[in-house]
Amino acid sequence: MVGIIMGSKSDLPVMQQAADFLKSLEIPYELTVVSAHRTPERMFEYANSAKDRGLKVIIAGAGGAAHLPGMVASCTTLPVIGVPILSSNSIDGWDSILSILQMPSGIPVATVALNGAVNAGILAAKIIGTSDETVAAKLQKYQHYLKNKVLDTVDEIKQFHPNSFD
Amino acid sequence: MVGIIMGSKSDLPVMQQAADFLKSLEIPYELTVVSAHRTPERMFEYANSAKDRGLKVIIAGAGGAAHLPGMVASCTTLPVIGVPILSSNSIDGWDSILSILQMPSGIPVATVALNGAVNAGILAAKIIGTSDETVAAKLQKYQHYLKNKVLDTVDEIKQFHPNSFD
Amino acid sequence: MVGIIMGSKSDLPVMQQAADFLKSLEIPYELTVVSAHRTPERMFEYANSAKDRGLKVIIAGAGGAAHLPGMVASCTTLPVIGVPILSSNSIDGWDSILSILQMPSGIPVATVALNGAVNAGILAAKIIGTSDETVAAKLQKYQHYLKNKVLDTVDEIKQFHPNSFD
Amino acid sequence: MVGIIMGSKSDLPVMQQAADFLKSLEIPYELTVVSAHRTPERMFEYANSAKDRGLKVIIAGAGGAAHLPGMVASCTTLPVIGVPILSSNSIDGWDSILSILQMPSGIPVATVALNGAVNAGILAAKIIGTSDETVAAKLQKYQHYLKNKVLDTVDEIKQFHPNSFD
Amino acid sequence: MVGIIMGSKSDLPVMQQAADFLKSLEIPYELTVVSAHRTPERMFEYANSAKDRGLKVIIAGAGGAAHLPGMVASCTTLPVIGVPILSSNSIDGWDSILSILQMPSGIPVATVALNGAVNAGILAAKIIGTSDETVAAKLQKYQHYLKNKVLDTVDEIKQFHPNSFD
Amino acid sequence: MVGIIMGSKSDLPVMQQAADFLKSLEIPYELTVVSAHRTPERMFEYANSAKDRGLKVIIAGAGGAAHLPGMVASCTTLPVIGVPILSSNSIDGWDSILSILQMPSGIPVATVALNGAVNAGILAAKIIGTSDETVAAKLQKYQHYLKNKVLDTVDEIKQFHPNSFD
Amino acid sequence: MVGIIMGSKSDLPVMQQAADFLKSLEIPYELTVVSAHRTPERMFEYANSAKDRGLKVIIAGAGGAAHLPGMVASCTTLPVIGVPILSSNSIDGWDSILSILQMPSGIPVATVALNGAVNAGILAAKIIGTSDETVAAKLQKYQHYLKNKVLDTVDEIKQFHPNSFD
Amino acid sequence: MVGIIMGSKSDLPVMQQAADFLKSLEIPYELTVVSAHRTPERMFEYANSAKDRGLKVIIAGAGGAAHLPGMVASCTTLPVIGVPILSSNSIDGWDSILSILQMPSGIPVATVALNGAVNAGILAAKIIGTSDETVAAKLQKYQHYLKNKVLDTVDEIKQFHPNSFD
Repeated sequence: MVGIIMGSKSDLPVMQQAADFLKSLEIPYELTVVSAHRTPERMFEYANSAKDRGLKVIIAGAGGAAHLPGMVASCTTLPVIGVPILSSNSIDGWDSILSILQMPSGIPVATVALNGAVNAGILAAKIIGTSDETVAAKLQKYQHYLKNKVLDTVDEIKQFHPNSFD
Repeated sequence: MVGIIMGSKSDLPVMQQAADFLKSLEIPYELTVVSAHRTPERMFEYANSAKDRGLKVIIAGAGGAAHLPGMVASCTTLPVIGVPILSSNSIDGWDSILSILQMPSGIPVATVALNGAVNAGILAAKIIGTSDETVAAKLQKYQHYLKNKVLDTVDEIKQFHPNSFD
Repeated sequence: MVGIIMGSKSDLPVMQQAADFLKSLEIPYELTVVSAHRTPERMFEYANSAKDRGLKVIIAGAGGAAHLPGMVASCTTLPVIGVPILSSNSIDGWDSILSILQMPSGIPVATVALNGAVNAGILAAKIIGTSDETVAAKLQKYQHYLKNKVLDTVDEIKQFHPNSFD
Repeated sequence: MVGIIMGSKSDLPVMQQAADFLKSLEIPYELTVVSAHRTPERMFEYANSAKDRGLKVIIAGAGGAAHLPGMVASCTTLPVIGVPILSSNSIDGWDSILSILQMPSGIPVATVALNGAVNAGILAAKIIGTSDETVAAKLQKYQHYLKNKVLDTVDEIKQFHPNSFD
Repeated sequence: MVGIIMGSKSDLPVMQQAADFLKSLEIPYELTVVSAHRTPERMFEYANSAKDRGLKVIIAGAGGAAHLPGMVASCTTLPVIGVPILSSNSIDGWDSILSILQMPSGIPVATVALNGAVNAGILAAKIIGTSDETVAAKLQKYQHYLKNKVLDTVDEIKQFHPNSFD
Repeated sequence: MVGIIMGSKSDLPVMQQAADFLKSLEIPYELTVVSAHRTPERMFEYANSAKDRGLKVIIAGAGGAAHLPGMVASCTTLPVIGVPILSSNSIDGWDSILSILQMPSGIPVATVALNGAVNAGILAAKIIGTSDETVAAKLQKYQHYLKNKVLDTVDEIKQFHPNSFD
Repeated sequence: MVGIIMGSKSDLPVMQQAADFLKSLEIPYELTVVSAHRTPERMFEYANSAKDRGLKVIIAGAGGAAHLPGMVASCTTLPVIGVPILSSNSIDGWDSILSILQMPSGIPVATVALNGAVNAGILAAKIIGTSDETVAAKLQKYQHYLKNKVLDTVDEIKQFHPNSFD
Repeated sequence: MVGIIMGSKSDLPVMQQAADFLKSLEIPYELTVVSAHRTPERMFEYANSAKDRGLKVIIAGAGGAAHLPGMVASCTTLPVIGVPILSSNSIDGWDSILSILQMPSGIPVATVALNGAVNAGILAAKIIGTSDETVAAKLQKYQHYLKNKVLDTVDEIKQFHPNSFD
């Protein structure tokens, strides 16, 4: 249902987080390496066949002059989520961000924060949730979980600042 | 089906382009002004009621310290597309971009290019197209249209550079 | 008298410094976690009730797309001091700074330097000092203390550069 | 009650907006030019005498290597609000912002957005409002006024998008 | 001998300058539009056939998230010169520069200055000149021409500053 | 006594201001064009002969990848003042500034603000003033003149803000 | 055939990578240190004699205010490849990049990514390959090798994600 | 003869390098801490008395919102050399650089590279050398020493690349 790709195996520690989120919501995904620059044919085959293979959303992560998300988006009508990655060949992430974000009119990439693979996973789930109430309900639960995690830290801090707002 | 909001009426010339694209694909939308900073209650009502009012996707545009897309995203399970706007109170757009893009883990905003409202409209259509084959087919047509517009310019240029690649 | 809030417990090591300064001047404060994105209702309740609970100034710290200071400022007439935090999900602090500093006309946030929580505490004291001569006098003393700390280093260095200006 | 100063007469079109806001709230102010670099003695006299002359807050605007707000802050216990100005000798405002914002620990400047003189005026009023309920009440009214201005544009837009959220 | 391509017809005023330089040195070239994002197949055909069609160097110009130079480079062993273009959808050119310059190891693009199409033409000639003495000799002449243009302005200025160095 | 050089005649409107300041202090100067990239021999002759021709200070202005100030500094023991110029081929001046400022250890360039040719002239006068009391006295007068120009604007503004600080 | 130079011995760990690539393709090269600022005569002799010594391409690496690539380019008709280096005296590499990339019209430098010495080596080989089919064939093989390395990681990842695209 | 000052004792490891260079050339100097923000009176006394105490040049180092060099320059006709310091409260040094470099017309600061205290020492010597031939001769020797250090590394590298240019 969700395709997760990345430009290099070194991106895996970041991109795995998108997979882990989808797994936690029981949304099926595939995950592999597709390099825009080193395997351009593979990239085109991936993008051109994505819809027919049953994918609904593609998450693509890349660093530096990150062409993978934009090039995949140019070959499919599926929504593509781009994850800029702070790789070793990146200048503080600016190159990754701008190469993914600043797509020309006609070919959008849904860009998330630098190294924001978790958010890419959540965004994919939100997209699927537009037509799948089970997923939407799970996202609702997840937002409650986030809230409760904050409230837990409120309680922790309260021990040292007892008269503060709750 | 798609909610288009913006922080200020001065954002309308940019954000109207998202509406125009959706119209061209016959996707219903609503469009209004919601200011995170000047009408915070209205923003919360908008975001909290969005799903029940039948929206599937929200497009939110804002400039400067642009909090609207992220705050709306924090109140709904719908996917939110953020459009950074180069408003008069923006530093070359960097503030708008970073305020929308760099969301914390848990609350994604699907960010498009600076002033990229057309792409926000297309991305909304791609999201709807994940469960609506008619829309997906129209997007396919739109990609052909983009391609043909390029090929037209190829022909124009060919008049002056007759032996070039076609 | 002063409310100190932060977007995440990971901001505590920085924000605690604001509390410590206020404590050293015997200015009462409360300190807790309020997340704009994960606990939006809590944020609104906090901001809306701040004045009635007796707060005079609010100090809000956040990193990345830092919406907490600006959103709190939109719900209260109290002055809000924003502390941009260099969190792990921040691009060298630029996102935190611009998200807090570049507020639209109508809703100011008094922004201090990146990680400048001590200065946020001092600024809060300066604000309270506008109507509280005891606090103003303590600030005067603090400025003398800062000066004397510099003069101490002048003496230390003088041991190695004996003929220098004093 | 509020001192408004600027580094050069060319900053007046921006800084006048702070004065205009204060006037609209009937808060007394003085306004003059004080150059940190061309009239350093005048700057020190201004800052050293500010409190005794009855000022409660100082608003200082400057562009380029903007030293005025920080130097004034170093000589007084009054809160100093800094307005970075996009002057002709500024690099897109970055120099003005960083010279004012990044003050060392001990000497805060309450920095507002680039050219944000209106917000400086509002912030000064908020500070005065911490001990003056009349001013606080006027600020409350002002926030209603801002909200209503947004709601007016909602109505305007509604004419063209009749079925949108209100 | 040299292929000149650009992502959009709006890039022509800049890219024409590369063609004009090559013409002035009587180096044959072709010039057309190839969009990485709107005509991906065309781009691949162009790049894959470039060497067999007799090209020795490719000059590719693009703005914003500029993927054309890098994607073409990924499909050919010919040297590819990238021209970052300050298009209307670019953030001061930073996106264009970084998307072209920061290519991953394995796939170089010879990047020139923002809008530096003349230099792209000269660089193409320098590359051809490595195996073509006639072209190398013409480049030598061109460097003399550049020098003489400077010396002409030296003479002009000398009229007003007669005792200066020559 | 002072050599003023620039990389291109288009830099003259900025660099003339350095000459005008020196003229107003009756400090002799020469002014010409020397291009590091188009006339490298001329640059070396200029730098190598500068001291013997009686120059005491060199002011060098250039834009973009500005190599002139640093290269001249590498060939002489005279102090070299660098003026980064916002030329048409510059990215907001950042390239000009960094190419001049960030010289390696061993070869300093005294860098002034972007387009800061007046300040380059003043700095040259300050350097000459270290061994010429007449020039030092004129600089003292100039600082008074600057102060008086500020005080004039204080008087102007006083007409509209009569009760402000003087 | 290829000259590799660098501004300082500390650049060797980066620049050695260009040499290693050329060696792997059996392209002869020379490698030495040439400092634009500390040995300007040596630089000129190097550049002026390069062609006659049989060089076809020059690769020049430097950090900070990196003048070496541009100055060498100004003295030769050979193509010069510039490698911006993230040296200890560099501001995140921006100074190195802009000093090399933003060359004025007339004197191009073929700039590669920050620390991109491998790509400089490949680009030199691509340039030589324009007139040497053996080198061109080796580059073709190298691109296959890059592709196969990616496909190997595809296989590795497949063990954990067995049903993903191949 | 040369005054070396810095905003904080933490700047000493950098600023000591200026002193060490001056010592190596037997140029007398004084060195102490002067904080623009914590000891403003001391700063004014230092700057106002500098010339009468026999100083010819002042070197001032500071980090963050670095006001020391510019404020000292505003009170003296002596040339002031500014050293931007990458202190812990600095954003990659940009704040330090821009606060020192971008001085308004009338008050120049001779800015050197980030942490460039050695170059500040050399520049001070160059300034003194304009009227002191002994110092000028020592600088000439120092430039030979720099050249010879480069040539030593040329010899080292030659062992591994025997046929390279010398």
